[in-house]
Amino acid sequence: MLPEEVLRNAQAALWDLDGSGVGILEHSHRSKEFLRVLERTERLVREVGGIDDSYAVLFVTAGATHHFAMVPGSFLGAGDTADYCHTGVWSAKAIEEAKRCGAVHVACTGDPAFTATPSTFQWSAAPRYVHYTSNETIYGTEWQTPPPAPAPLVCDASSDIFSRPLVLANHALIYAGAQKNLGPSGISLVIAKRDFIERGRADLPPLAQYRTYAKEQSMHNTPNTFGVYIIGEVCAWILAQGGLPAMGERNARKAKLLYDFLDSSKVWRGHAEPASRSLMNVTFRGTKELEEALLARAEQRGLANLRGHRSVGGLRASIYNAFPEDGVHRLVQLLDDVERGRP
Amino acid sequence: MLPEEVLRNAQAALWDLDGSGVGILEHSHRSKEFLRVLERTERLVREVGGIDDSYAVLFVTAGATHHFAMVPGSFLGAGDTADYCHTGVWSAKAIEEAKRCGAVHVACTGDPAFTATPSTFQWSAAPRYVHYTSNETIYGTEWQTPPPAPAPLVCDASSDIFSRPLVLANHALIYAGAQKNLGPSGISLVIAKRDFIERGRADLPPLAQYRTYAKEQSMHNTPNTFGVYIIGEVCAWILAQGGLPAMGERNARKAKLLYDFLDSSKVWRGHAEPASRSLMNVTFRGTKELEEALLARAEQRGLANLRGHRSVGGLRASIYNAFPEDGVHRLVQLLDDVERGRP
Repeated sequence: MLPEEVLRNAQAALWDLDGSGVGILEHSHRSKEFLRVLERTERLVREVGGIDDSYAVLFVTAGATHHFAMVPGSFLGAGDTADYCHTGVWSAKAIEEAKRCGAVHVACTGDPAFTATPSTFQWSAAPRYVHYTSNETIYGTEWQTPPPAPAPLVCDASSDIFSRPLVLANHALIYAGAQKNLGPSGISLVIAKRDFIERGRADLPPLAQYRTYAKEQSMHNTPNTFGVYIIGEVCAWILAQGGLPAMGERNARKAKLLYDFLDSSKVWRGHAEPASRSLMNVTFRGTKELEEALLARAEQRGLANLRGHRSVGGLRASIYNAFPEDGVHRLVQLLDDVERGRP
Repeated sequence: MLPEEVLRNAQAALWDLDGSGVGILEHSHRSKEFLRVLERTERLVREVGGIDDSYAVLFVTAGATHHFAMVPGSFLGAGDTADYCHTGVWSAKAIEEAKRCGAVHVACTGDPAFTATPSTFQWSAAPRYVHYTSNETIYGTEWQTPPPAPAPLVCDASSDIFSRPLVLANHALIYAGAQKNLGPSGISLVIAKRDFIERGRADLPPLAQYRTYAKEQSMHNTPNTFGVYIIGEVCAWILAQGGLPAMGERNARKAKLLYDFLDSSKVWRGHAEPASRSLMNVTFRGTKELEEALLARAEQRGLANLRGHRSVGGLRASIYNAFPEDGVHRLVQLLDDVERGRP
């Protein structure tokens, strides 16, 4: 979901960007109008995240899956080891890609049920970096604080970026596909330490090196101009809500409504352990019959996409930044109605 | 530029896609609503291009620059040679990336002035493929027919795709960044022979292999859903105009207006030789003073982006599919007014 203000502004900008008489899709990426959009979006991303200039802010035309390969391609050389935190389906994909490039050590795991983020760690001797997935959409677990790693952290933050105050300390690189909390699909935001970027391989194609994006302000080739525009609008909306502290409070309040209900229910039960619960994806189960009854009634209550990921089943409420508190109330009401056999 | 109908439809779809009550940016890429969009866009691309099922139609979240590296990464192995046709700035970039992967033989060149597409060829003994750039935006030259190659053709058609009837014969793979004639930036269309795709390397990351896109209908990861939607709308618009034969006639008519004027002018002269003239990018020069006079007056006549690429200077009119005939008339009028010193 995207905020209504963002959608309304985007509708206007498709036809006429900032009074230029030409739409955002039609301006050349070298036009002064688009350069203003790019400059504004980067400035707003930095303001929202509290990101100083020791970090580059990059817009990469790709989803997070691309970074699963691009990170080890750049930073995991022959003789290096990278440590990976394994917390579910997404971390497994990142691990698989890293193994193509070099030595991967799984330092911690939520195996087999992935009900919690790991609390015990076996780091390798000298990891080049430590990769983790801050939020696992499928199991509904989220790191409450980053793993206590002995090396620079690389984070796939696709599903919880800008949902709470950003922790930059110890992070070398954060990447996030935009489509959960930031904007449209087909673009990703990367926040990376400039000195870390410079340590990446320099003999790869330009678009496979983060340094190209840093050096050329994401303009080595035509970026996803519409995506850059929308991310700027979303950041402006976040600031208008009070910034990340306010987003974090709002998201915690939304999630608490649902988790409190699940904890008190006699038939619904949450999947994730309390200390690892995601504020973005609340995973839960009932009986098969109750789950189907809920799904059958959800649409008429204006609730969609409640079926859990096909790999794990059950139910899942994805309550990203733009999901309204009112929607959570309606979901709790529906869960309660189904539990009590009320129409 | 995009057709006004496409922009109006896109504005509506941002808010509510096909009466679903949810916008195109907000639907999951696995939702039935988006799957319908994807299926429709592929069907319309096939209808517009006359593309049968021996070719896969792929949507890649990337621009053409990405394919400069992805094509040789997949198809130019150790011991292979690929032949490249060198016609300007874009082909040079493609050649540079291919050299990273294997042996590149430049089979023909428009060096040094790039006023024409080559007419003499020195093919290597057994090229794995032959790469050419169908239209060179910077010099304003366009292949009138594909190069007579002794191997499967790979074409960068970013700047003239769907501007005239598509020639598929002898082509193994055609790629096109969408932002000139097809839609927004941040997505590319690939039309590739299924058997050629299968001959690519299979040990690369999934997103670096065309076969992944072919096998998973461009859904290995979240595609640029908005881009897929817009490409479908643009294809529907092309069909409503009469399809590619009508687009080709219309584009030829538009370009002829401008070239006929340049040929008759005493002060303006076209860059490209008549037999290699682009229907998409008309490059020309006057004196420095006349060029500046024209640029200074263009905006008040509703004409923009007439400055030639910074690498070659001069002037350039980019008259892609959606550029209206009326705009060409206004440009000719302005050129004539400047030539004759009329206000």
